[in-house]
Amino acid sequence: MKKIKRIGVLTGGGDCPGLNAVIRAVVTSALREYNVECYGILDGFSGLINKRVKKLDLNDVSGILPRGGTILGTSNRDNPFKYPFKNDKGEIEYKDVSDQVIRTIEYNELDAIITVGGDGTQSIANLLHSTHNIPVVGVPKTIDNDLGGTDVTFGFDTALTIATLSIDKLHSTAEAHHRVMVIEVMGRYAGWIALHSGVAGGGDVILIPEIPFKMDKIAEKIKERENRGKRFSLIVVAEGAKPEGGDVIVARKVHDPNDPIRLGGISQFVGNQVEDITGIETRYTILGHVQRGGSPSPLDRILATRFGYHAVKAVMEGKFGHMVGLRGENIKTTPISEATAVPRRVKRDSDLVKTANALGTSFGG
Amino acid sequence: MKKIKRIGVLTGGGDCPGLNAVIRAVVTSALREYNVECYGILDGFSGLINKRVKKLDLNDVSGILPRGGTILGTSNRDNPFKYPFKNDKGEIEYKDVSDQVIRTIEYNELDAIITVGGDGTQSIANLLHSTHNIPVVGVPKTIDNDLGGTDVTFGFDTALTIATLSIDKLHSTAEAHHRVMVIEVMGRYAGWIALHSGVAGGGDVILIPEIPFKMDKIAEKIKERENRGKRFSLIVVAEGAKPEGGDVIVARKVHDPNDPIRLGGISQFVGNQVEDITGIETRYTILGHVQRGGSPSPLDRILATRFGYHAVKAVMEGKFGHMVGLRGENIKTTPISEATAVPRRVKRDSDLVKTANALGTSFGG
Amino acid sequence: MKKIKRIGVLTGGGDCPGLNAVIRAVVTSALREYNVECYGILDGFSGLINKRVKKLDLNDVSGILPRGGTILGTSNRDNPFKYPFKNDKGEIEYKDVSDQVIRTIEYNELDAIITVGGDGTQSIANLLHSTHNIPVVGVPKTIDNDLGGTDVTFGFDTALTIATLSIDKLHSTAEAHHRVMVIEVMGRYAGWIALHSGVAGGGDVILIPEIPFKMDKIAEKIKERENRGKRFSLIVVAEGAKPEGGDVIVARKVHDPNDPIRLGGISQFVGNQVEDITGIETRYTILGHVQRGGSPSPLDRILATRFGYHAVKAVMEGKFGHMVGLRGENIKTTPISEATAVPRRVKRDSDLVKTANALGTSFGG
Amino acid sequence: MKKIKRIGVLTGGGDCPGLNAVIRAVVTSALREYNVECYGILDGFSGLINKRVKKLDLNDVSGILPRGGTILGTSNRDNPFKYPFKNDKGEIEYKDVSDQVIRTIEYNELDAIITVGGDGTQSIANLLHSTHNIPVVGVPKTIDNDLGGTDVTFGFDTALTIATLSIDKLHSTAEAHHRVMVIEVMGRYAGWIALHSGVAGGGDVILIPEIPFKMDKIAEKIKERENRGKRFSLIVVAEGAKPEGGDVIVARKVHDPNDPIRLGGISQFVGNQVEDITGIETRYTILGHVQRGGSPSPLDRILATRFGYHAVKAVMEGKFGHMVGLRGENIKTTPISEATAVPRRVKRDSDLVKTANALGTSFGG
Repeated sequence: MKKIKRIGVLTGGGDCPGLNAVIRAVVTSALREYNVECYGILDGFSGLINKRVKKLDLNDVSGILPRGGTILGTSNRDNPFKYPFKNDKGEIEYKDVSDQVIRTIEYNELDAIITVGGDGTQSIANLLHSTHNIPVVGVPKTIDNDLGGTDVTFGFDTALTIATLSIDKLHSTAEAHHRVMVIEVMGRYAGWIALHSGVAGGGDVILIPEIPFKMDKIAEKIKERENRGKRFSLIVVAEGAKPEGGDVIVARKVHDPNDPIRLGGISQFVGNQVEDITGIETRYTILGHVQRGGSPSPLDRILATRFGYHAVKAVMEGKFGHMVGLRGENIKTTPISEATAVPRRVKRDSDLVKTANALGTSFGG
Repeated sequence: MKKIKRIGVLTGGGDCPGLNAVIRAVVTSALREYNVECYGILDGFSGLINKRVKKLDLNDVSGILPRGGTILGTSNRDNPFKYPFKNDKGEIEYKDVSDQVIRTIEYNELDAIITVGGDGTQSIANLLHSTHNIPVVGVPKTIDNDLGGTDVTFGFDTALTIATLSIDKLHSTAEAHHRVMVIEVMGRYAGWIALHSGVAGGGDVILIPEIPFKMDKIAEKIKERENRGKRFSLIVVAEGAKPEGGDVIVARKVHDPNDPIRLGGISQFVGNQVEDITGIETRYTILGHVQRGGSPSPLDRILATRFGYHAVKAVMEGKFGHMVGLRGENIKTTPISEATAVPRRVKRDSDLVKTANALGTSFGG
Repeated sequence: MKKIKRIGVLTGGGDCPGLNAVIRAVVTSALREYNVECYGILDGFSGLINKRVKKLDLNDVSGILPRGGTILGTSNRDNPFKYPFKNDKGEIEYKDVSDQVIRTIEYNELDAIITVGGDGTQSIANLLHSTHNIPVVGVPKTIDNDLGGTDVTFGFDTALTIATLSIDKLHSTAEAHHRVMVIEVMGRYAGWIALHSGVAGGGDVILIPEIPFKMDKIAEKIKERENRGKRFSLIVVAEGAKPEGGDVIVARKVHDPNDPIRLGGISQFVGNQVEDITGIETRYTILGHVQRGGSPSPLDRILATRFGYHAVKAVMEGKFGHMVGLRGENIKTTPISEATAVPRRVKRDSDLVKTANALGTSFGG
Repeated sequence: MKKIKRIGVLTGGGDCPGLNAVIRAVVTSALREYNVECYGILDGFSGLINKRVKKLDLNDVSGILPRGGTILGTSNRDNPFKYPFKNDKGEIEYKDVSDQVIRTIEYNELDAIITVGGDGTQSIANLLHSTHNIPVVGVPKTIDNDLGGTDVTFGFDTALTIATLSIDKLHSTAEAHHRVMVIEVMGRYAGWIALHSGVAGGGDVILIPEIPFKMDKIAEKIKERENRGKRFSLIVVAEGAKPEGGDVIVARKVHDPNDPIRLGGISQFVGNQVEDITGIETRYTILGHVQRGGSPSPLDRILATRFGYHAVKAVMEGKFGHMVGLRGENIKTTPISEATAVPRRVKRDSDLVKTANALGTSFGG
């Protein structure tokens, strides 16, 4: 095995609290523990394609641990195997520019690349490894918590905290106004944030992509509360939640472009329907990118720090094509192909869903 | 003057952090300082119309100081001079039921009513006072801070804090992604929250109802930043901000019901236009009701407490038809009619606007 | 097995964020899932001794999920096997009053008791079970996270968050003043809070009871930083940390009652020594009870809720003398005697200690 | 008047949230509004004595608005008129080195110095102006809020918020344990933080330097609460509070060096006495430097930004020897000598003290 002297690190895909903590741990532990230099690659794979690389020393990563964002920048549209170009006619075409990636790595004498990112980033990293033999080690990252190969991802606890504190705020205002409040949180394919913030915030109804809902079940829950003298309710809905029997939003959009459903996504759809059925005034809130921002929670900082150190360790041990991940109390590595094969989804019979059910929370299903 | 033995208190209009602090101060100071009993009227004027009144003692208000919402409930649709009824045909008609208000007050032997609320609530209170001689004292309340008769209202600092912390969160994510982030905050007629959170959060562009904006001025600012190497920008927009020369949103809605402008209000309109003009990826967030919720800030708790005590004092001094308000360091009373006559608006030549300008912030105008 | 109709629940020992979440989960899931009534026992075992028991219904636990403290009250000095009395001479004597506990349980027809508490509470509960056959189920609680039988306890994440945010605050002020800041966090016997908040807050030195420290190692680290141009350092110290070779604090206290060590505990001892050795100005902060208070973090609310539901389930399944606990992803039960046998301690060769070492953190040992 | 081309800026005295906001506003508005360059002077007056000055451009101050601390560093011991030196015998002597200050200013061609600091810093600045004709403009800074020449100082609202949130946390734990909690906040000579956080946090007793207290009055209040069934109380005490008739702490220290009073300052003294008199278990917390740290509140950021811009404006208008300050809604300038002449103290008959009294809060006096 080639001796490692220089490691490159990049952050790809959506922003996520804890990215800076990973970068700091990579740079600091590489230098202190292994006497290895680190180079930051700017804006995800773009930096590898467009030769934007800079040396990182201890001062560059000093003080970044508690900061949101990423000092390296990130990008969503930079697949080196399918990179967008404008052709002569001004149309977008896609080319394979992975040879430029190799040139950047060779030019900067990088002996390994640590790729911090989600599903998309890791799949590209794996392809670079399998087709071009580029020595990559992955660090999983997604606030949605739906990546395989790890029990949990950093960023999730921070997003959960922001969502829960927002639910707390809506609770008091829902109660004062005797309203139904619908809050839409992130989670296009997986309901982790909605489930966890819904339980932590005491949501009366939680709607997630994994459990298609029926409107009458939701209305039933709200009426049950009204009968007990509770004239307000709180519905937590993942952006990817959908009614049983198909994606109503898309279906109705075709028939009537002016349909209110489109106006605010699933939360408005649910809110409007609830108001129609129950007659109780309803408001909705879409949390949006606020969930991705700000200082990472202590838990996320610790997990990100452990991931960063163990990614360096994996590089030193030559575990290329692997991704680090939390397994129980320990950090272990998994082949990236395995980690990205099956996304983590909420199971209907999981303990937390059953617990929420036992406390009276409705999943509308 | 009649001796005061019992005071009623109600909270009307939109929820606002600090309402419970007012109620606590009213009940506690009435009992301790003046040996006067307090009665809570439920759900704003509804409670006066529908005879929902309950005695409040020290234990009822114990522990509520830091809590959002209002233990009395509130309502937006309960004008006793124009109260909605369904007639025989099932249509909504409006009746004057102010005589019921008088009956409730007499039945409960209330010697005065403290009405905590905004423009709408105070106008009704004043009408009850002027037409029926009901002894009311007003306490100003609005997170928008646009009420006359007081330098500032409680709830504003809390909303400002929530908005600013959200801007902080968006900042790191905007920088990581090289995006323009648009954040829509409350303020239909007045730009106080947008102006203050925009300055506190370091917004590059601040759009408020008082200064109609031009899209090219906004784009200019963003390009100036790009030229300095800043590939992200943050735009804070009040929900009531509008382009120069008319309310584009309404205008275009008529012509094309499917227009994207409608989808997310002014923030989406601005975001889409900025993306079109500058070519920089843009995202928008609508903070919504989260701004109204949660524990009041220390400043708001203190102001609400002072208002509550001084409202009781005003009652004891017979200053009916008046509203308490902060004037410099002191709490003073103003006739309600005067306080509601001229709403507070941001002035283009105010010191904070000029300060923001001097620091390079664009108001788009 | 006797049919369960009524469950009693008590909270004992030190206050801990999440207690109310447990109580809410117990009451709600008992009623909804099993149609079983719940009774709250006031102030820990005191309530069992002194017959202070009250019925809890859904309204009693409505809205308490996000609140710190415990609606049942707690107590530290209420061991029914060793209960303090004043004898005729005014001296304190201890008696076994466990028969009163039995009478209270029988009188209120309680079929099981859920005891939420730490080491002390669980040991008493177990003794009540083993000697008097009282049907108890334990729920582990300690912000120190040092209880066996569970991977983690609720309250810990909240304490960790409060400690970390305080470290963040001290960081900026340490840097501005070029000072060494010492922050003392909870942890008399175990260093979990210090270790985790130290890593999350980027502490330069972390001192825990499990790794006795040498002053010269600490000074060495601070000087290494000074040599790199870092004129400030942050030391996180658990209240139970001690120098190698004995508990200096106790030792020196005997010889010189005026010794500065006593004035502020271990943090002042460390601070004074560091200032003497390095010549850098040093300040210390003792976080204290603030770590126990306030709204539980989302993670703690979820864990507490799961514990509450599973405690009821364990009661229904007759698992008396057992304690619920988190094991991996699942909640499992363990005999209380086993759970309290071996406290959880930080291991010197644990992954987090090694990770912190790799990043340059000194443990002074 | 000499044309201004270069402004120096320094931060002196204790750290305070908002210093970076001032620096950012000075640099940005000087450059953008007046095309004037700015130079940062490091570590307060030390930088002027020891020639540590660096140019600041827009990038240097980008992103610092929400950060605590000061990018320029600060110092408490750097009076150029009385600067400490070690003489040949190793003793500390003080010299006047103000000529070095002049040399640094002339060498760097600084046309004015903006001095951000409290009482001490402004007095030195004023002396530099009056004796050496150095063109200084002051910006008031103290978290204690006790400086003249301004209605309020930045940093105060942040300290108030930290103190109040800590009181909130202690409240729940005090209630759970039926304890008296004493919390010591900053304020050696003035009780602003204690008074405001005490009212905002619902403290039962507030002790401030301006109102000497009697222990029996405090005990009376706690007993009154106990009689009402409130078995917990919260005492907020400023570090400079003292008993009527002299400073007991100093007095008793002389007689008995082992006296517990010394161990934790005034909060422990009060706590111990309360426990002795009332028999209720008592705990105390000293917030300490945590109050100085962290991100400034929105209000403090806005005030600091206005101060920074107006300080530049005052420089351009030649108002040397003056300090900016908030007066009502406006920023005005006052001669530094006037501003530092009379410190702001809480008045016993101020509206907030009277309001607190009316709500039942005891000041022990």
